[in-house]
Amino acid sequence: MSVLAIDIGGTKLALAVVDSGGRLTTSVRIPTPHGDDVEAETIWRTLVTMVDRVLHSAGILSGELVGVGVGCGGPMSWPSGEVSPLNIPAWRGFPLRDRLVKRFPGVPVRLHNDAICVAVGEHWRGAGRGWDNVLGMVVSTGVGGGLILGGHLVDGASGNAGHIGHVVVDPEGPMCKCGGRGCLEAIARGPALAEWAVAQGWQGSGEPTAVNLAADAARGHPVACAAMRRAGRALGIAIASATHLCDLDVVCLGGGLSQAGPLLFDPLEEAFRAHARMDFAREVRVVPAALGQDAGMVGAAALVLAGERYWSAG
Amino acid sequence: MSVLAIDIGGTKLALAVVDSGGRLTTSVRIPTPHGDDVEAETIWRTLVTMVDRVLHSAGILSGELVGVGVGCGGPMSWPSGEVSPLNIPAWRGFPLRDRLVKRFPGVPVRLHNDAICVAVGEHWRGAGRGWDNVLGMVVSTGVGGGLILGGHLVDGASGNAGHIGHVVVDPEGPMCKCGGRGCLEAIARGPALAEWAVAQGWQGSGEPTAVNLAADAARGHPVACAAMRRAGRALGIAIASATHLCDLDVVCLGGGLSQAGPLLFDPLEEAFRAHARMDFAREVRVVPAALGQDAGMVGAAALVLAGERYWSAG
Repeated sequence: MSVLAIDIGGTKLALAVVDSGGRLTTSVRIPTPHGDDVEAETIWRTLVTMVDRVLHSAGILSGELVGVGVGCGGPMSWPSGEVSPLNIPAWRGFPLRDRLVKRFPGVPVRLHNDAICVAVGEHWRGAGRGWDNVLGMVVSTGVGGGLILGGHLVDGASGNAGHIGHVVVDPEGPMCKCGGRGCLEAIARGPALAEWAVAQGWQGSGEPTAVNLAADAARGHPVACAAMRRAGRALGIAIASATHLCDLDVVCLGGGLSQAGPLLFDPLEEAFRAHARMDFAREVRVVPAALGQDAGMVGAAALVLAGERYWSAG
Repeated sequence: MSVLAIDIGGTKLALAVVDSGGRLTTSVRIPTPHGDDVEAETIWRTLVTMVDRVLHSAGILSGELVGVGVGCGGPMSWPSGEVSPLNIPAWRGFPLRDRLVKRFPGVPVRLHNDAICVAVGEHWRGAGRGWDNVLGMVVSTGVGGGLILGGHLVDGASGNAGHIGHVVVDPEGPMCKCGGRGCLEAIARGPALAEWAVAQGWQGSGEPTAVNLAADAARGHPVACAAMRRAGRALGIAIASATHLCDLDVVCLGGGLSQAGPLLFDPLEEAFRAHARMDFAREVRVVPAALGQDAGMVGAAALVLAGERYWSAG
């Protein structure tokens, strides 16, 4: 019972053969082809080559797979699987699922948003395991998420449920790339945080990235620490809103920024406790994600291996 | 196939016999007994008398009912049905469901939050009918709601999903009765709106109530109009957040304040459009509820008559 899991983002392509227990038996990872001259077919051929390589490494044939699960950056048409990942400009309306169906005839090919796959992975085999009502979050270049309620993945009207990054945390706050104002993502995404810190006078020890910002915060740099508090507070407010609306058990926080540890989690917890005051909301726990970079592939595999919980599209 | 539906709030007790199509064949409504000397048993005996009366009017016997559905003000233990309605101080941990089970042995007795029953009613037979992803809202003395996703009522970890009133719309805003700050309810509940208008110099033509405020707004009173805009804006922001998180089809808005019509819905729509900018969120429609005061009873009946969609507690 092996599944091919594929995780496609703007920076990396990752593939794995996953067994029925959710373990990655073989995996490969390369940078996503990028540049102005990269064509849609170039990325597709790279992906196909990677598929052949990971199956060969695992010593299995295409025909032995029970299915293919894919997480891909949004937006996309769901469940039909034409993808237009924000960070892969060469793919606009690319028929990714159709291509994979032709490559793997006769088995299910299931594709969902990459952040949703992370949330599913954390629920199936990670920090959310055993709970029925879980918000899985990825805080990185963007802020994404996925929502499991009553033990089942919530898709919403168009497969877009879980967009915690566009919950409004400050209606007078900064403009968001979506066109709105004061979205969680506009404040807490890594690049926005670094930009805010630079505007406050931070001159990082290297490039002004969120990674360097977190490192400086760990060394006690006051502006870097303030930036982490700013992100933590915005996250705490958005999580309080989500908790009141959805009556969650657990919130799993992953992605690069979540590596900052208490520098992020302490102000997050403080803001969450200040705003999540209904009795039922006080019970919620916010925990770090457990699966790291594998979460998306584990979740993609779960779309096939645990479809009764994570795949509603038939 | 008749169900007894009961809707219990701080101001009224309403009961109806509901047929399998969701129609109220007979109904009665009286003010909820109140006052410092009212005891728990007094309210219970009043309710039992009302039950007898509505069954007698409908010309049916207890034994002919296929079940009993109840909506009651929260908080409550769900699904066990001990209730402690905020606005009925005499009931604290009152075993309402157990009492009804003794009165109606052998049939299901299902009890949920009153705002959830309104949302269920609007989804089953009202303005949300035919859509799979619906937020039903009640804007009145408080701001409550219920969430239907994937065609099924979302209960959450403790039966408290749908608390849209405690989504944060302004983290620096007014304190909320829940202990938080800037909740939708702290701004948009009727009494808070009236209080805000009084502080801005509004001297209503009668008592400083939300009803009179809405009436003055309809006459063009500038402070009253500003109060409606304030409520509409807060509602629009909270609905945008809920839409991004849950990927809704439709939001149904009911309760006393929603009677204000365009004075409330226009600024609501404006704020919603400003903040709900993701493509999928732009599709959402915010519509007035359709069932008026009957929505709670229709929804309570649906807990029994359409339990496969609205009752998960077994």
